[in-house]
Amino acid sequence: MLRQVLHEIKISTRDRGLYEFTEEISAWVSRNGFQTGLVSLHLQHTSASLLIQENADPDVRRDLNKFFERLVPDGDPLFVHTVEGEDDMPAHIRTALTTVNLSIPVRRGELALGTWQGIYLWEHRRLPHARTVIAHFVGE
Amino acid sequence: MLRQVLHEIKISTRDRGLYEFTEEISAWVSRNGFQTGLVSLHLQHTSASLLIQENADPDVRRDLNKFFERLVPDGDPLFVHTVEGEDDMPAHIRTALTTVNLSIPVRRGELALGTWQGIYLWEHRRLPHARTVIAHFVGE
Amino acid sequence: MLRQVLHEIKISTRDRGLYEFTEEISAWVSRNGFQTGLVSLHLQHTSASLLIQENADPDVRRDLNKFFERLVPDGDPLFVHTVEGEDDMPAHIRTALTTVNLSIPVRRGELALGTWQGIYLWEHRRLPHARTVIAHFVGE
Repeated sequence: MLRQVLHEIKISTRDRGLYEFTEEISAWVSRNGFQTGLVSLHLQHTSASLLIQENADPDVRRDLNKFFERLVPDGDPLFVHTVEGEDDMPAHIRTALTTVNLSIPVRRGELALGTWQGIYLWEHRRLPHARTVIAHFVGE
Repeated sequence: MLRQVLHEIKISTRDRGLYEFTEEISAWVSRNGFQTGLVSLHLQHTSASLLIQENADPDVRRDLNKFFERLVPDGDPLFVHTVEGEDDMPAHIRTALTTVNLSIPVRRGELALGTWQGIYLWEHRRLPHARTVIAHFVGE
Repeated sequence: MLRQVLHEIKISTRDRGLYEFTEEISAWVSRNGFQTGLVSLHLQHTSASLLIQENADPDVRRDLNKFFERLVPDGDPLFVHTVEGEDDMPAHIRTALTTVNLSIPVRRGELALGTWQGIYLWEHRRLPHARTVIAHFVGE
């Protein structure tokens, strides 16, 4: 018999960058005894993203940030929406270029992530923010 | 006891740009009495996207369009697939850079969107198009 | 009564490029007699993507590759993470710019894809790789 569970996760960010929260999702799966199913994540913001990326070499995260800062420069004169700071419109664009949704299968009681996959919140703003992720599970 | 419902939404576009349809999804959730669950959206096209973005300041949508027009220029001589017009291949690339899928939790009878989040169809073609979104709900 | 099924798909890649596997998903849907529901796909890697794109003119795939090779150049001196080759960090970035998740409704016993939509694995590395996609179905 299938069931579903909703869960809310709060993540505090200090600056632009990647914040891993794989462990929080894994712990929630274990705690609830989920065996088989699907975890869907939704981030309730428009200036931060969800991302699955390599969790081994920290240089990957450094290079990701460097690339996105060059691709979508802060303070670009193209932008009209600048009232909240020169990193605000770039944050919206970085969010559009990535995603606010992830969905990860659960198999044999664990998240079916690849060996090198970690689940990240990608903060695109420079100032500290309180971010909320809603997790939904359907399965057994 | 979990149930599911499928629903089809038609959206007419007049030109490149963002078309909000949050209300159509919210109304569908209310009408069916969905309390808790997950809404998944699939856009059946390869030259338009689904996007969750800020629904307050219209300058955000203006700047998003400006940025993407600079990033993926119409008529770029790099492109070979030009038979359907100089905005066609850019439309496919803009779709690849964004997404055709969204999934949004339902909580306490409402879409669990953030305060500033709206659901948009992003039309990437210049001419009017009839677009179709398939919505799937699973939950209670 | 809703049910769910998990399925694992292996895809061998020879080089950077798009590999269609719509037929494998369609055949799985038919074989299991799925009538109505949602198929969610998760790719277990951080240097390849899942993509829904046009499956008619092969020039679309050629132009997609050309554009991404210009946008994220191999061997860009910006990158520090280069130990696995000059195409490795670009592969992580191309994955971040696209997605590793798709979700496609099932309606009347078939994937509810648009006329021109095909499901692709997008390999971003130059060398052959063995890739794994986990498919989850919930529905009837």
